[in-house]
Amino acid sequence: MQLYSFFNSSTSYRVRIALALKGLDYDYRGVNIRVDEQKADGYRALNPSKGVPLLVEDDGTALSQSMAIIDYLDETRPEPRLLPAEPLARARVLELANAIACDMHPVNNLRILGYLKNELKVSEEQKNDWYRHWIAEGFTAVEALLERHGHGAYCFGEAPTLADCCLVPQVANAERMGCDLSAYPRMMAVYQHCQRQPAFQQAAPSRQPDFIA
Amino acid sequence: MQLYSFFNSSTSYRVRIALALKGLDYDYRGVNIRVDEQKADGYRALNPSKGVPLLVEDDGTALSQSMAIIDYLDETRPEPRLLPAEPLARARVLELANAIACDMHPVNNLRILGYLKNELKVSEEQKNDWYRHWIAEGFTAVEALLERHGHGAYCFGEAPTLADCCLVPQVANAERMGCDLSAYPRMMAVYQHCQRQPAFQQAAPSRQPDFIA
Repeated sequence: MQLYSFFNSSTSYRVRIALALKGLDYDYRGVNIRVDEQKADGYRALNPSKGVPLLVEDDGTALSQSMAIIDYLDETRPEPRLLPAEPLARARVLELANAIACDMHPVNNLRILGYLKNELKVSEEQKNDWYRHWIAEGFTAVEALLERHGHGAYCFGEAPTLADCCLVPQVANAERMGCDLSAYPRMMAVYQHCQRQPAFQQAAPSRQPDFIA
Repeated sequence: MQLYSFFNSSTSYRVRIALALKGLDYDYRGVNIRVDEQKADGYRALNPSKGVPLLVEDDGTALSQSMAIIDYLDETRPEPRLLPAEPLARARVLELANAIACDMHPVNNLRILGYLKNELKVSEEQKNDWYRHWIAEGFTAVEALLERHGHGAYCFGEAPTLADCCLVPQVANAERMGCDLSAYPRMMAVYQHCQRQPAFQQAAPSRQPDFIA
């Protein structure tokens, strides 16, 4: 199995966490999205969506979209399960995971910040305000969901799920961008718990072969 | 069962399609996101994410996030299935659905276009360019995924799936915004096929109780 990934891409980071939690080995293939390697012809032939991550099975089957990849891993390598079997427990995991994957990550990723800067010529301050605005909107919802439905050391219980795979990279990004996260104590407790676990540590950006300090 | 929805919200439209395909009855509760009804205290108490759609079961269980809601409906009311059981078929459906749900819809929804206009003071032309840029990026990927993996009258085969639930509202939006969609013939053939089916017609914005012409 191969994973095309960029050390600092939070969607790649989600999949790395899932692979580490399941104890799966894979070849790491770095794709530097800062210099548009994902747009090169060779990579586009492999992944027409021009993004990372991309999972490639030994038979050549290639799958994009982090949420699809983690679901696929859970179907084909079910232990430990990252999506619970019970419908409402599963729904709560997907609700929180999608609050991050649909409402937060897409509006603050590299291509959007690049468009704001290069096409719309917004100032550095306006770009930072944009980033912080969507982080605050999103984490306010995440904290409320955790207050209502969260329990245990992870988002939902005493074992990690897809929700934790999505939460950790998003919080790490917000920390890196200097956001004030003091309004989300429950979320931060989950984040800090995850960061102490070996699988999460192994998946961290600084531990990847393509890491740039 | 109740569905909090806005006629013109494409995430609400996705869930309406899923409910119609499954033949499920529900009470329609309109939430006018054009005048910020989703931010009112009463609705925020129900849904701290301040969005539509929201599904509320008769026992009061409330679930947000369209992708979580459709998965939940598929788990609790499985016939007809919108997510295939076979792992790779399921992965292809989720890959295409998330290419729309994560890469396209979030960057062009009402709150983002509102921020561009009201906070960043971009011109109408810049806002339209933004919209068309992400539509073209996204549908180019969707068309490539359909060329590689699509088959049959729907996205994947002769029965509708979650992929079709996501595709139809996104294409309908792009049409409404006057985007040129001639570069995506396979996608448009699927779209037109869906639009001829009663369940998709029943879920259309113009057929909802809160429709505003």
